[in-house]
Amino acid sequence: MTIERVAIIGLGLIGGSIGLATGEMLGEVETTGWDADSEVRRRAGERGLVGKVCDTAGEAVIDADLVILCVPVGAMEEAASGIAASLKPGVIVSDVGSSKGSVAKALARALPDATIIPAHPVAGTERSGPDAGFAELFRHRWCILTPGADAPEAAVADLSAFWEGLGAKVEIMDAEHHDLVLAVTSHIPHLIAYTIVGTASDLEDVTRGEVIKYSAGGFRDFTRIAASNPVMWRDVFLTNRDAVLEVLGRFNEDLTALQRAIRNGDGDTLHDLFERTRTIRRSIIEEGQDDARPDFGRKDH
Amino acid sequence: MTIERVAIIGLGLIGGSIGLATGEMLGEVETTGWDADSEVRRRAGERGLVGKVCDTAGEAVIDADLVILCVPVGAMEEAASGIAASLKPGVIVSDVGSSKGSVAKALARALPDATIIPAHPVAGTERSGPDAGFAELFRHRWCILTPGADAPEAAVADLSAFWEGLGAKVEIMDAEHHDLVLAVTSHIPHLIAYTIVGTASDLEDVTRGEVIKYSAGGFRDFTRIAASNPVMWRDVFLTNRDAVLEVLGRFNEDLTALQRAIRNGDGDTLHDLFERTRTIRRSIIEEGQDDARPDFGRKDH
Repeated sequence: MTIERVAIIGLGLIGGSIGLATGEMLGEVETTGWDADSEVRRRAGERGLVGKVCDTAGEAVIDADLVILCVPVGAMEEAASGIAASLKPGVIVSDVGSSKGSVAKALARALPDATIIPAHPVAGTERSGPDAGFAELFRHRWCILTPGADAPEAAVADLSAFWEGLGAKVEIMDAEHHDLVLAVTSHIPHLIAYTIVGTASDLEDVTRGEVIKYSAGGFRDFTRIAASNPVMWRDVFLTNRDAVLEVLGRFNEDLTALQRAIRNGDGDTLHDLFERTRTIRRSIIEEGQDDARPDFGRKDH
Repeated sequence: MTIERVAIIGLGLIGGSIGLATGEMLGEVETTGWDADSEVRRRAGERGLVGKVCDTAGEAVIDADLVILCVPVGAMEEAASGIAASLKPGVIVSDVGSSKGSVAKALARALPDATIIPAHPVAGTERSGPDAGFAELFRHRWCILTPGADAPEAAVADLSAFWEGLGAKVEIMDAEHHDLVLAVTSHIPHLIAYTIVGTASDLEDVTRGEVIKYSAGGFRDFTRIAASNPVMWRDVFLTNRDAVLEVLGRFNEDLTALQRAIRNGDGDTLHDLFERTRTIRRSIIEEGQDDARPDFGRKDH
């Protein structure tokens, strides 16, 4: 692996975790970082998220072999433009955005001559900001790379090796397919969770206190997802609009069918679906993507 | 507290947990139990879920001061009829069903002369069966009692004391309000989770393998809920139909509004909602109904 210096632009949950993971697992790789928020830079320095927190984005990237943009997808183009003049020749520019088609276009506009390899580590928590990151975030999680047809193979190999060095498993696919897959496994679940949490807090006949008290019946799991970073998720829905609307259409059809089954007292249709969905859970646990302990091993208070 | 002997009919997750919790926290109270499935009875005996596993439901309830029916809500009436002839005078008959209006009616039909106090401990995991229960399940969780207008105060007090003895917090409300509140905090979240897991497994352009691999983006949380007991949940939707359809209508309106916001590129509407839902999460953690650790303290594999 030929990456000796990595610059991280944006020091929140993902950027901070990349910095910490690199320090812990790839000790020979130097890290620099920058964040647009001076308070985040200060806190990043205190926590040692990267080897050196710089005062400008240009200073952070100046000698980097790999630059990773860890900002909301709607802010990618501006972040890329801000470093364009300081990049060294041959640098790989990557990102961690949750939608890839629009990010690839934004980066190509801002950096027409750079080697761009968009990436998406499928990992996260509901927390955000410079205190949220931890070195183990990517371990046994998938990182999807979506290189364009003209991306140099050596650069793709280097970036793959970097993510594998942080404990991730790497998969390569085209941006369009990524955006459809993630609409299903991440974007629609978030949209639905945000919606039901909003619905619950707007009802007239059920108080917010009741919603909170009895949340252990299932609702609390949705609130976790619905506590995710608002700016990040706004940008995801705006930039992956087509795939999100397509999957949402399918979801609505399926929900309408279940609604009709409930109205008609059709227990067989309900039971058949509820049996079928159990097997997917089992596969996710077998694949190591979740914890089989009841309640995730939640501690009683 | 005057309850000296408790009979538990149905020895799955909830019945088994009541037995274990009684043994651990109310050591002076005797427990008997029965399950319609002989294999469950055998396993209940091996695990010691109750003091004595009986061969018939009648035998289990014969000297009980409190009988708790822990069967799917669609099976309540039959379970109650099966013990009618063996109940001792003055016994309290209760249950643990997730819908209360229909259960109250079913129990009243089967046991017209008994003291019936329906109850619902708002606690559970995605696991079911005689191996799933544990003594701490109810600790710091709410148990809702929905006594009819004619229920003796002393019996309500006895049942409240019993649940508090298992570590639960007790709330009393009418059955209709319970069914609306739980439609919001439990039934609709389950219905939505079942739906999206079904939608994801039926797509042609995304393989099931991909859905499983990238589930850490949010989808996996839905699969946990969608792995719950299919018979129990079928019965919940059939018996709490009106409240479920009412809340589902509100959810659909809200989802349609977000769909339109995405289509129109209206980022402000999305951001406003996503900010608002964060505060509910904070309240749930403050109230002790969830774990604030990132990812619930999930272990990396």
